[in-house]
Amino acid sequence: MSTSSDAPVSDREQRILDIIEKTRARRPKFKSPNVTMAHGAGGKATQTLIEGLLVPAFDPDEAGLAVLADSGGVKIDETGIAMTTDSFVVKPIRFPGGSIGELAVNGTVNDLAVAGAKPVAITIALILEEGLPTEVLRAEVDAIASAAVAAGVEIVAGDTKVVERGHADQMYITTTGIGAIDPRASLSPRALRPGDQVIVSGSIGEHGTAIMLAREEFELDAEIESDTQPLWEAADALLGAAGPDLRCVRDATRGGVATVLNELARASGVAIIAREGDVPVRADVRGAAEILGIDPMYVANEGRLVAFVAPESAGAALEALRSVPGSEGAAAIGEVKTEPIGMVLVETAFGGKRVMDLLAGDPLPRIC
Amino acid sequence: MSTSSDAPVSDREQRILDIIEKTRARRPKFKSPNVTMAHGAGGKATQTLIEGLLVPAFDPDEAGLAVLADSGGVKIDETGIAMTTDSFVVKPIRFPGGSIGELAVNGTVNDLAVAGAKPVAITIALILEEGLPTEVLRAEVDAIASAAVAAGVEIVAGDTKVVERGHADQMYITTTGIGAIDPRASLSPRALRPGDQVIVSGSIGEHGTAIMLAREEFELDAEIESDTQPLWEAADALLGAAGPDLRCVRDATRGGVATVLNELARASGVAIIAREGDVPVRADVRGAAEILGIDPMYVANEGRLVAFVAPESAGAALEALRSVPGSEGAAAIGEVKTEPIGMVLVETAFGGKRVMDLLAGDPLPRIC
Repeated sequence: MSTSSDAPVSDREQRILDIIEKTRARRPKFKSPNVTMAHGAGGKATQTLIEGLLVPAFDPDEAGLAVLADSGGVKIDETGIAMTTDSFVVKPIRFPGGSIGELAVNGTVNDLAVAGAKPVAITIALILEEGLPTEVLRAEVDAIASAAVAAGVEIVAGDTKVVERGHADQMYITTTGIGAIDPRASLSPRALRPGDQVIVSGSIGEHGTAIMLAREEFELDAEIESDTQPLWEAADALLGAAGPDLRCVRDATRGGVATVLNELARASGVAIIAREGDVPVRADVRGAAEILGIDPMYVANEGRLVAFVAPESAGAALEALRSVPGSEGAAAIGEVKTEPIGMVLVETAFGGKRVMDLLAGDPLPRIC
Repeated sequence: MSTSSDAPVSDREQRILDIIEKTRARRPKFKSPNVTMAHGAGGKATQTLIEGLLVPAFDPDEAGLAVLADSGGVKIDETGIAMTTDSFVVKPIRFPGGSIGELAVNGTVNDLAVAGAKPVAITIALILEEGLPTEVLRAEVDAIASAAVAAGVEIVAGDTKVVERGHADQMYITTTGIGAIDPRASLSPRALRPGDQVIVSGSIGEHGTAIMLAREEFELDAEIESDTQPLWEAADALLGAAGPDLRCVRDATRGGVATVLNELARASGVAIIAREGDVPVRADVRGAAEILGIDPMYVANEGRLVAFVAPESAGAALEALRSVPGSEGAAAIGEVKTEPIGMVLVETAFGGKRVMDLLAGDPLPRIC
């Protein structure tokens, strides 16, 4: 079945398109009387907060924020600039494979990369807790500086605030980045078409699992390292290999791959099938996740992207991705389908299918 | 006395220039074993943190941050872009004349304005405290949206994190802005020359006093409103009236006018004399400050700038500024002198002189 725009639209297709439009128009209401931890966990509650409260105020025309991208575009003197911001409140601030400072750089440059923009410059705003040992601060400042060099971005401005003891868990970091929109990029969360292939850039679930194990509440002794790394090189390779056939790219942070698939299925008015057996998950991550009672598909990554590519370019895209250091483990894990609209299904190893919805609750707060 | 570069340099001038270079090269060491509230108050301790710890890591060549400007410049495809970031942790979040949301927009667009850049777009990163009443959040989101409209900037991206109850004092907001560098602007903190006039755009000390009175610890009943407002129109007027004669502009936030004068005296290797009797301070602010035991010159403003203008254009600059709504109370308050290098002196109403140094301690934390 084709949905290309030059073909005549059948009654059935028109009906589907109507449903898509209706779904898009239906904006969730933010009814909670208070903010809860779930509103920061990246799942359904976060989406309700963004769509029900923030977008109506900040972007009443739904020009930018409504499509739920992590970055926005702006023009200065006809130059296309992508801009993104993220606060990092991860606890603990140091964990196997990284720390809040490194994360704060990679998280932000990756939001630019998956928007098809080459990261150029970042700003760093520090909120420090009174009493923070200087050596802890110095280590994070050095981590920020090294990560910026590794990601090829300049730190152009900064700010420092101090709050009283007990108010900031050592430190919070907000990083904002700007990038130059790549002329090869024509990405949109609404661009997915049935038949598109879903590709992840490597094994999933490592960052979130590393954080959970680093928290003292869990007594598991596996040494799993965060996957935190910059992703522009991977995005660049995808743009080179697939060009306009690259529909959309997302980094799979809070809420994991499952949340990315759900958001895009909804934004594009399509279904997505993920083949569970094809999703790369390291054995130790799978084991830890099982013990912790969570599905790796919902676990945050900080160095993995999900790409949606037209079928004719999917092979080239996968090959290009695998040639990028850090993304050698890339794999095709699923396909975009026509129905059920807005839903994500998982095909299990045994051939069964189940719905993989947005998380409603809050299993993993403060992961980034 | 002239310091223009085509005149021959006398022995005495050379000696002064040597001292300036030496002063610039001498970087303070950050020796404190812990972060204290003073490091966030905008005075001497903040400067030591920035120059002794952040600049060496983030900007080892001292290309940008070392001049202590609140914003940095970056080029994308030859387009000059100014970028700035600020976290807002003001307590309480609502105060007479404004709130954290409005402040978060104005503080950031003003950093761009005083860098000679027309504000174009901002991002908003929210760190929310678990349990925050939705109506409180909604009020700040609306305040952000209104302030953005008033300042003429688009909100292009956002982020939301939630931290556990007891952290984050309801909310922290980090706003980052980008602006288009105005071709008329040739501003630098190192550009001050003896004879330059010092102009403030209105009466000072209102924001900080309003915050202090809004805290329950002070039992003073004066209703003083924050001066929070966007300043691009004022900066635009100055650029139009003085052009290249406009040496430098700063918004006098944390640390107040006194801190701006000290930072620039040091950066330019000049002295600055402020005439106490010419500084506009409202009677109620002066009274409250006296009771609180603080000098209004050190109190934060959020809608006031300090401009340094060559003498031949100072009159035109002052007139232009007074024609801008919100800056009608602009006044010339002082002059740049040759010596003592790096110091700020106050000429009292009685004709005496005293040194007005950077604040060492921490009288006013969490003011923005």
